[in-house]
Amino acid sequence: MTLPAKYYTDPEIFRSEMERFYFGRWIYAGRTERIAQPGDYFLCDVAGESVIVTREGAFYNVCRHRGTRMCTVPEGTFEGRIRCPYHGWTYGLDGSLISAPNMGEEGFSRFDYPLHRVACEIWDGHVFLNFAAERQPLDVPDKFSAWNMGELKSHRRIVYDVKANWKLIILNYNECLHCPVLHPLLNRLTDYLGADNQTPTPNFVGGSMGFRDGAETMSIDGVRRREYLPGLNAEQRKMVCYYAIYPNLLLSLHPDYMMTHTLWPKAVDRTEVVCEWHFHPREMAQPGFQADDAIDFWDQTNQEDWAVSELSQLGISSRAYTPGPYSKREALLHAFDRIVE
Amino acid sequence: MTLPAKYYTDPEIFRSEMERFYFGRWIYAGRTERIAQPGDYFLCDVAGESVIVTREGAFYNVCRHRGTRMCTVPEGTFEGRIRCPYHGWTYGLDGSLISAPNMGEEGFSRFDYPLHRVACEIWDGHVFLNFAAERQPLDVPDKFSAWNMGELKSHRRIVYDVKANWKLIILNYNECLHCPVLHPLLNRLTDYLGADNQTPTPNFVGGSMGFRDGAETMSIDGVRRREYLPGLNAEQRKMVCYYAIYPNLLLSLHPDYMMTHTLWPKAVDRTEVVCEWHFHPREMAQPGFQADDAIDFWDQTNQEDWAVSELSQLGISSRAYTPGPYSKREALLHAFDRIVE
Amino acid sequence: MTLPAKYYTDPEIFRSEMERFYFGRWIYAGRTERIAQPGDYFLCDVAGESVIVTREGAFYNVCRHRGTRMCTVPEGTFEGRIRCPYHGWTYGLDGSLISAPNMGEEGFSRFDYPLHRVACEIWDGHVFLNFAAERQPLDVPDKFSAWNMGELKSHRRIVYDVKANWKLIILNYNECLHCPVLHPLLNRLTDYLGADNQTPTPNFVGGSMGFRDGAETMSIDGVRRREYLPGLNAEQRKMVCYYAIYPNLLLSLHPDYMMTHTLWPKAVDRTEVVCEWHFHPREMAQPGFQADDAIDFWDQTNQEDWAVSELSQLGISSRAYTPGPYSKREALLHAFDRIVE
Repeated sequence: MTLPAKYYTDPEIFRSEMERFYFGRWIYAGRTERIAQPGDYFLCDVAGESVIVTREGAFYNVCRHRGTRMCTVPEGTFEGRIRCPYHGWTYGLDGSLISAPNMGEEGFSRFDYPLHRVACEIWDGHVFLNFAAERQPLDVPDKFSAWNMGELKSHRRIVYDVKANWKLIILNYNECLHCPVLHPLLNRLTDYLGADNQTPTPNFVGGSMGFRDGAETMSIDGVRRREYLPGLNAEQRKMVCYYAIYPNLLLSLHPDYMMTHTLWPKAVDRTEVVCEWHFHPREMAQPGFQADDAIDFWDQTNQEDWAVSELSQLGISSRAYTPGPYSKREALLHAFDRIVE
Repeated sequence: MTLPAKYYTDPEIFRSEMERFYFGRWIYAGRTERIAQPGDYFLCDVAGESVIVTREGAFYNVCRHRGTRMCTVPEGTFEGRIRCPYHGWTYGLDGSLISAPNMGEEGFSRFDYPLHRVACEIWDGHVFLNFAAERQPLDVPDKFSAWNMGELKSHRRIVYDVKANWKLIILNYNECLHCPVLHPLLNRLTDYLGADNQTPTPNFVGGSMGFRDGAETMSIDGVRRREYLPGLNAEQRKMVCYYAIYPNLLLSLHPDYMMTHTLWPKAVDRTEVVCEWHFHPREMAQPGFQADDAIDFWDQTNQEDWAVSELSQLGISSRAYTPGPYSKREALLHAFDRIVE
Repeated sequence: MTLPAKYYTDPEIFRSEMERFYFGRWIYAGRTERIAQPGDYFLCDVAGESVIVTREGAFYNVCRHRGTRMCTVPEGTFEGRIRCPYHGWTYGLDGSLISAPNMGEEGFSRFDYPLHRVACEIWDGHVFLNFAAERQPLDVPDKFSAWNMGELKSHRRIVYDVKANWKLIILNYNECLHCPVLHPLLNRLTDYLGADNQTPTPNFVGGSMGFRDGAETMSIDGVRRREYLPGLNAEQRKMVCYYAIYPNLLLSLHPDYMMTHTLWPKAVDRTEVVCEWHFHPREMAQPGFQADDAIDFWDQTNQEDWAVSELSQLGISSRAYTPGPYSKREALLHAFDRIVE
């Protein structure tokens, strides 16, 4: 049976889920290509918590003097130091306090005031953060080395504001039973009953789906307009892998590109979803490279999914809602609900 | 004395009033003319709760599978069934579940998952809903058969967003003592001291008012531009009946038309008011039929009433507010306050 | 050390501070020039509480009958009486109820229903209000008689919507340690280490700052384009006095003009700041009088201050924020924090 309504409507449960899943687990923050050069950084906003992500690690964006947020430009390059715009306290890229003007007080030591750190790990081009004091090692699928995800580059990014609880978006991603009704276009390319799912783990679930005859990738017409990603074998070229890495990365590996959805909950009934399409740089360098066939296809599918997720949010908020029955084909959803409960 | 401020400012009291008055009593939902043909429906939104109103009854707009809101178009005609856009569960117009694709589980019976019903009654063209498990019979005035309200058709609808508690709008409707100060135009047509009020009941209050010399209806100049409603006797042709049917229908019966106000509270300090003008279809079919004299008159009066209701909301929210004295001419207000307390 | 985050982020503490500081102390409401003639009034909105300020005193803007807010035009002149727009209850300018139409009830006495008063005091052209039942005498600096503040007239008014707690704006005003980093323009005119601060009191703090060589006032280029205020001696002509009069008046006295900031908190993390520039009427009457040099200078400085106050608000809201160390040059801030705690 589906979960009681409160998991999708109660602001208190939402707050506690943010602590458990977003501030207590590894979360996906962005791609290493954004911090390719020394001094490069990007800001990651996690539920209003601003983090400065650099090659040397990640730091809370908070000056130790009067608590000022120091950095507001979403990404850029530091020239060797981070300086607070209020009174000029200045930090090294390793977070150490280098200078604090006019703080010549007895007993003041700059070594007492380094920036606060956030734990940071990298998995094949994906940067993960962890705010918790005690943490498990990063646990991700170990079967995607052939895709060489670390080499891929983001080509396009679309941000969606979805009026639905973050878990409804994961539930929607975790089953294709809705595909024939909701996604006629997608349903022409893959068989919704043909998913080959891996046994769910506490940190991720997912599986692969093959193509129907004639289709070679997920695109507006099933035609593949780019070379296969280098490294894929014959079998890997014939499937898409859909993995939900909890809580906020939906990883969709296609024969010729990678799609990522990142989930940033804004309220119990609202989630920002960042969708990005990543390609091999060799393809992107081709004259005439284009990816609209893949982008338009998933943009339309995304919009169908967000619309029905919003309808789920509205219906579950009804006083008439009671948990309904899952079928066996919705087993991944039940596995996720078990983690949430 | 007037009620303490909390009845108009406390969100908790507002929530409990919504339960008592809107989810615990019969509420007015709309007119039967909107469901004239088989399959016709309209959606009624009661404090975020969406109800599908059909000729066969009213249903919560919530699929029994995953809780999806199924229907979003405000009104239309079903072709014999209601289908959820997510996974295709399909219901008959009587709410029974007809098919549930891919739910071939052992132990699953479609008879366990009909749509949840909302009680529905019709009074002379007015559709009423009741969400409560235990309900009193619908209790409405029994003196309006001569007006044949069921025959009348809506000609015009204006929606107002009023920044005032719903009860302030009822209190404003229930007395005309403010008419000489606030409504100079209206005051030329009727004598504010001439109301003939019925003894208040727990479910409605109201009375009739005659016209001043020369006026024949409530219109911009007191001139009546339409035939009397068929069925009215000489006495009924010379008065307007103003009835507040709690909690959300203000019914104003004129010699030549019917006006309804429907109150939809949005917050403790905000109410959507839908005003509709209904006429006899024979008049509406006349070449050159127009009703601007009645619509403009009441639109202006409405706006004066909403403005002063908003000022009441603001003043009652003051820390200086203390209950003030009602005069004897405000007896209907005191009667309503007694129900609220 | 700076205060814990809750003083800047907790809505409950904000509400209690509003009671203590805004409804429990004398607050600055406006200038006497707005009520220069008999019958003149202006409305003062204190956290949603509307007050009618007149020459005869200040009154809650609430009719004693049904609690209606009576007056909505921000300023104007009453013709001898205040009349409620709902049922016509009419009050004298002293707040007494003069007439109450249709209230001929036995036992009703108009003497029982005067308008509720708010205490009102005037200090050299500044109007102060006090909502508290028990109040201390108004306590303001006694050293500014030479400036003849009561004679000055407002020339320009700019309203800022600052997304920061009201106290952060006071803390920002109370120190110039940030000036070299944040205000390069201002820093060319005054020496940030040259403040001569008075011993802080529970009701106000402040001090004076001299000019750097060549500057004569705070203006875009340090040039003074207006006569010195009459009454200033040689010493007073060479300094700016910056006083924070708690909770909501920041008073900045220049050799040739007065600037006031008034703080109106809207939420724990939002404050409306009204900045006004006041000049001597003799100067304002000069042909070719202009004050853009002073207005543009402070408008730019204001915007720098609000931007960094908003960054403080954001950073202090971080889960990583911990109180940081004040230097000796931030002593006035520590004194204010002691009052707040």
